Amino acid sequence: MGIDPGLRRVGYAVLQAGAGRISVACAGVIETSGELPSGARLEDISSGVTQLLEEYLPDSLVMERILFSRNVTSALRVAEAVGVIKLAARRFGLEAVEIGANQVKLALSGDGNAPKDQMQKIVGMLLDLPSIPKPADVADAIAIAYSFISRGWVPR
Amino acid sequence: MGIDPGLRRVGYAVLQAGAGRISVACAGVIETSGELPSGARLEDISSGVTQLLEEYLPDSLVMERILFSRNVTSALRVAEAVGVIKLAARRFGLEAVEIGANQVKLALSGDGNAPKDQMQKIVGMLLDLPSIPKPADVADAIAIAYSFISRGWVPR
Repeated sequence: MGIDPGLRRVGYAVLQAGAGRISVACAGVIETSGELPSGARLEDISSGVTQLLEEYLPDSLVMERILFSRNVTSALRVAEAVGVIKLAARRFGLEAVEIGANQVKLALSGDGNAPKDQMQKIVGMLLDLPSIPKPADVADAIAIAYSFISRGWVPR
Repeated sequence: MGIDPGLRRVGYAVLQAGAGRISVACAGVIETSGELPSGARLEDISSGVTQLLEEYLPDSLVMERILFSRNVTSALRVAEAVGVIKLAARRFGLEAVEIGANQVKLALSGDGNAPKDQMQKIVGMLLDLPSIPKPADVADAIAIAYSFISRGWVPR
């Protein structure tokens, strides 16, 4: 299970590997309302992730590591969501793995600085998807999970 | 209930107000081992805070807001703990309140930049404690809760 963490939108994707092939079991976003206080939003993220863990019982949970790109306050809010997701994972016996966006890009495209639209095309191609997954958070979550499997960063 | 969030140490204090007097019902720290992976540490924080909430059923939970003082990575780790604490609070119907350290200092000492040792003395005096609470995280948690009550930032 790959996760692109956020407070407003958490992208997720469950991939399965078998018979020499990797495919998408499910993918989507958990969205939270900006009108809710942050505790309530974290609760929505926690229950959304927990439902997915319950349904798919993944072998691993892999998350994109937060970078300080622009906004420090928003990075802290995303880190709160990361904490809640790590806690949910623990309750299913998983220690969440964090990998950097550049490692994901490198694993899939051979270029640690590949642009976002190129990454989305690669994801669509590698997984033989009929169209490029939207929103971008979903494509990111797929890429994170895919890089983890394909690089042999394999489950416990 | 006041909380000084951290990953290694979470300071907590439960204060009660009544009969014109504010007193400490309990105070201490939840410590986590640096040898554990971060998910396991967050789990320990979550269960420690949950136990306190269960036992004391506080009217409010007040936390110190994270500042970017020195280390950005450690601020992100602390934010993960904050997320987990906010989630625990929600499960008891509380939306955690965050207040800045300078607001706490201003409320207790009249000086938003009061030094740490002065704050600790003030906390000991205001609450008529036999000695200054140690470690500093405990004194901070007491100060946070005290400022919330004394300023009339009162429970829902």
